[in-house]
Amino acid sequence: MKGGLIRDGTVLHAERRPTPRAEGPARVIAAISAFVADLAVPRQGLRPTAVGLAVPGLVTPTHAVFSAAFGWRDVPAAAFTDVPLPVALGHDVRSAGEAELAYGAARDERDVLFLPIGTGIAGAMVLSAGLYGGAAGWAGQIGHVPVRPGGLPCGCGQSGCLSAYASAASIAARCGERSAAAVVARDDPLARQVWAEAVEALALALATYTLLLDPALIVIGGGLALSGEALLAPLRARLAARLAFRPAPRIALSSLGPHAGMLGAALLATRA
Amino acid sequence: MKGGLIRDGTVLHAERRPTPRAEGPARVIAAISAFVADLAVPRQGLRPTAVGLAVPGLVTPTHAVFSAAFGWRDVPAAAFTDVPLPVALGHDVRSAGEAELAYGAARDERDVLFLPIGTGIAGAMVLSAGLYGGAAGWAGQIGHVPVRPGGLPCGCGQSGCLSAYASAASIAARCGERSAAAVVARDDPLARQVWAEAVEALALALATYTLLLDPALIVIGGGLALSGEALLAPLRARLAARLAFRPAPRIALSSLGPHAGMLGAALLATRA
Repeated sequence: MKGGLIRDGTVLHAERRPTPRAEGPARVIAAISAFVADLAVPRQGLRPTAVGLAVPGLVTPTHAVFSAAFGWRDVPAAAFTDVPLPVALGHDVRSAGEAELAYGAARDERDVLFLPIGTGIAGAMVLSAGLYGGAAGWAGQIGHVPVRPGGLPCGCGQSGCLSAYASAASIAARCGERSAAAVVARDDPLARQVWAEAVEALALALATYTLLLDPALIVIGGGLALSGEALLAPLRARLAARLAFRPAPRIALSSLGPHAGMLGAALLATRA
Repeated sequence: MKGGLIRDGTVLHAERRPTPRAEGPARVIAAISAFVADLAVPRQGLRPTAVGLAVPGLVTPTHAVFSAAFGWRDVPAAAFTDVPLPVALGHDVRSAGEAELAYGAARDERDVLFLPIGTGIAGAMVLSAGLYGGAAGWAGQIGHVPVRPGGLPCGCGQSGCLSAYASAASIAARCGERSAAAVVARDDPLARQVWAEAVEALALALATYTLLLDPALIVIGGGLALSGEALLAPLRARLAARLAFRPAPRIALSSLGPHAGMLGAALLATRA
């Protein structure tokens, strides 16, 4: 969990804490509540005026409806904190995308895919300058788009998902490494093949996204973005090769890095 | 080409004319202009008050920017007619989608994919109750989403596109028939395989669309919609099977049929 104090898009204080995921949803919610309470203690004359919470899964402005990662269901925003401040709830990836739009690589763009690639892959879709959540809040599940039907099994229960080939965690696990960066640094046939398959899977999913949604810009964030040009150069080439009759959109790296989610939560809080 | 006179969503008069596609873009534009002039002649006391034109390709409100089918580039709306009436220009599939939203199967829905399947496949995406065209007007190219990378060649220059497996024209051509309906009516191994591959390709593309955009409803139109339950029953089953962790959206048939495009053009004209 990342938390902090933010004023006008500037991070004044930031902390990380482990998420007690193995102990069940009630403990996770209690840990979030304790984290918020500690952050709300006035420090250096700074006193927060609102709380923004960016959480994974299916989220509405009033409830954390469902998260496979944490196992919670229909948690009202107020359950996450007992500090006497306005509380705003949002989706983690969409909030990070909103921060990229307000402060980062997507500034001044209206049609953007923000794609953090880490343990998993999810997308925040900016369409006509607004975040799009779909009919029921389930939009942006690009990590589970079938890029190789019948391919590698995915934790979601499907097979051949983008995440199974191209998440930082999958790339590392397929090579017996602890990070995707370690795979990029290796120069053996397995590492080269896993990396090539990851890039090809991303190119395929992004070609599909481009054909459907015609974005002006794709912003890649999360741990895999740390690979920089080792990722961008082959990805740009493979994406262009997959699009025969239209140009590829620009691809850029997140400029906010690990702070994107917190800055997005602060935007939620500002609106609250 | 289809043209007609429409009042308040009711088709009062309709005509079809051949498109002189082989004679080049100037002749196509001249044929459209002549068609509009003939339709604008007052008949039975009816006198049109505006012209709506729904054309394929890349379209802005002021220009038909590009069409691979007709070969035109940057044609201003006014070039399509010399009748002294306001003229509105729109995209053919998106206009038909707008008609489905106003009068048809998608009435009262906010997040809908309208998918006409005929000679080709294109999509009109209704997102938060508005038609979405993308950053540059290229959105909705679902017919060219790669469902089988490295698969059958497509007229667009790519391979493995949805259209190469599931357009009515491709289904017919792969079986040496003149229509997809004739393939559905056959009961030999080739026809069964081609139909199964078409349904599977559609299920794969619609699973991807659903994971990305979370629609409430998918409306299938065009010639292939005439197959009715022979298409819908297996498609619903295959789409549900592809989505492990979320329900499938509803799939319905277009209720406007071949009039959808004209009704959409009339909506454009009404706004003009």
